[in-house]
Amino acid sequence: MRPTTGWQADSATRTLLREALERRDLRPDDIAVRIEYCGVCHTDLHALQAHESDANGVLVPGHEFTGVVTEVGSAVLDFSPGDPVAVGNLVDSCGMCRMCQAGQENFCREFPTLTYGGADRRDGSTTLGGYSREYIVTNRFAYHLPAGLDAAAAAPLLCAGVTVWEPLQALGVGPDSTVAVAGLGGLGHLAVKMATGLGATTSVISRTLDKADEARDLGAQGFVVSTDPKQMEAVRDQFDVVIDTISAPHDLAPYLRMVAMDGTLSHLGHLGPVTVETLDLLIGRKKLSSAGSGGRPSTAAMLHFCAEHGITADIELLPSSEVNRALERLARNDVRYRFVLDMSDLD
Amino acid sequence: MRPTTGWQADSATRTLLREALERRDLRPDDIAVRIEYCGVCHTDLHALQAHESDANGVLVPGHEFTGVVTEVGSAVLDFSPGDPVAVGNLVDSCGMCRMCQAGQENFCREFPTLTYGGADRRDGSTTLGGYSREYIVTNRFAYHLPAGLDAAAAAPLLCAGVTVWEPLQALGVGPDSTVAVAGLGGLGHLAVKMATGLGATTSVISRTLDKADEARDLGAQGFVVSTDPKQMEAVRDQFDVVIDTISAPHDLAPYLRMVAMDGTLSHLGHLGPVTVETLDLLIGRKKLSSAGSGGRPSTAAMLHFCAEHGITADIELLPSSEVNRALERLARNDVRYRFVLDMSDLD
Repeated sequence: MRPTTGWQADSATRTLLREALERRDLRPDDIAVRIEYCGVCHTDLHALQAHESDANGVLVPGHEFTGVVTEVGSAVLDFSPGDPVAVGNLVDSCGMCRMCQAGQENFCREFPTLTYGGADRRDGSTTLGGYSREYIVTNRFAYHLPAGLDAAAAAPLLCAGVTVWEPLQALGVGPDSTVAVAGLGGLGHLAVKMATGLGATTSVISRTLDKADEARDLGAQGFVVSTDPKQMEAVRDQFDVVIDTISAPHDLAPYLRMVAMDGTLSHLGHLGPVTVETLDLLIGRKKLSSAGSGGRPSTAAMLHFCAEHGITADIELLPSSEVNRALERLARNDVRYRFVLDMSDLD
Repeated sequence: MRPTTGWQADSATRTLLREALERRDLRPDDIAVRIEYCGVCHTDLHALQAHESDANGVLVPGHEFTGVVTEVGSAVLDFSPGDPVAVGNLVDSCGMCRMCQAGQENFCREFPTLTYGGADRRDGSTTLGGYSREYIVTNRFAYHLPAGLDAAAAAPLLCAGVTVWEPLQALGVGPDSTVAVAGLGGLGHLAVKMATGLGATTSVISRTLDKADEARDLGAQGFVVSTDPKQMEAVRDQFDVVIDTISAPHDLAPYLRMVAMDGTLSHLGHLGPVTVETLDLLIGRKKLSSAGSGGRPSTAAMLHFCAEHGITADIELLPSSEVNRALERLARNDVRYRFVLDMSDLD
């Protein structure tokens, strides 16, 4: 086993403590990654809040990170030591099912292996995440980080980025599209950048005017205050695609109402059950969808697109020792727009 | 006013009684239709059950009928006395809004005028439906009945038919599509015929094996018994489009599960709220939609398609005097697949 250091959940205090960790020895298809930067995702917060050590074992969060290859297994051809790489929220899948064969490993019929809190497919051990100095991953689930992308600001692309990229692609967003993005956080601000990069006319829906200038700076042409009924009425049936990234449960009806004929509301912000009125779908033949994570081809395409269009996340970079403060601020949505931890303080 | 006869709700007994009715005198854009055949729709049943004479005024159900033009208004150019015509569940709309301009009068922003229980846009009177010998309708909302279509069996195309035609068209169903139809009633059996006519590989989902032979006769190549978990598992992620025509509230999860990657569940069978698990949409990037009725261009196109492919409803034709028995049997789903009333006994 390989010793490393990381931020591990303490179930009594619901905080993360710096601990010595062990990583597996390299398998033939593995690469070792020295993690430089790891984004802080809402999922990490939920995992920590839900964590009870007896039931869930060891928890080390973190599933959007970038770093440098330090060592490769004997069968690895595509990576060499020194390569800048990125890893997202999936680190393995069955590889055999219809979804894996279609390059949608995120929908693996046997469920993909999550970067943390998952069960390794070969030895059954619990995966420990990227709030750590080293990660060992099969090279199938590592991505070359394209030149020109800042390694810190690119880290959130691997989870937040691909989660909004997938629906934009699946729904055919391009220069003729009108897109609204509800909620301007980690997911939302990347959705605005990507939709704009794809050529769509993009608007932001937000509760107050506070973020109007920022929305424009991100590329949005329109801004709608969701608490103003007049503004909401003015955008009725307007958007081909509405990307709803609001992270708390909420009524979908106002967002369905702004979807154009034959358009789609893509509900990404939180999981759990949602209720809609059939009539709100029926009138205008609107569709409700969701998305989460992405397959390997889509993740690679997204990174390529972002490099081409100079898209990364707007981040607050903190030393990893500030992780508890970052999580506490994230719980209050006090971040514009994504925290990224600098892991160099773990040496 | 023009005297006619029809079947009017008696709120005390929740049955229909034969009564003398009055129709308006022809406006310049109106045509008078001698109704020959009127289909019996689930909506009629719900309207009768909900009817209270004080609150709702006079109720004469019926919104899918065929007949013959007997007289035309001075400004009508497209119809002449003697023309076979069909009328569906809409008889007017604002004509000005974005939806009307797009030929989707069914989604008129000012709400379309319903064939019965609606408010006439000019005099505010309550519209009385097609369980009647005569109807006066603006020629914009009458359709030429194509030659070759049996007038009795074509009547249900005007509501049930266009309701399934719309999602099949909107979702691009064609020769490369796999379609499942859940529920084999008035809507479902027409969905099977139309999907097959469009070239799709079509399956029927039903609770028991009872309807397997009929499904095959309608054109279905597959048949899945929804109460058999093995059969349901075998069609997981299989269908590009699932047309759900089940008329009672039910769990959508099993039907979402059989939708293929990027496919759509079109929920048509009943209105009201529906709850889905976000994860059931997320995994496979599936979509939930609905549909109901259709615009004028779509209705005309549907009739043309049906004439070309020899598609009409499978009906039980009854004298209109049997309307109460028909409704009572419909409430038990005891009909294969649509009752049509012969109005000639109203003379």
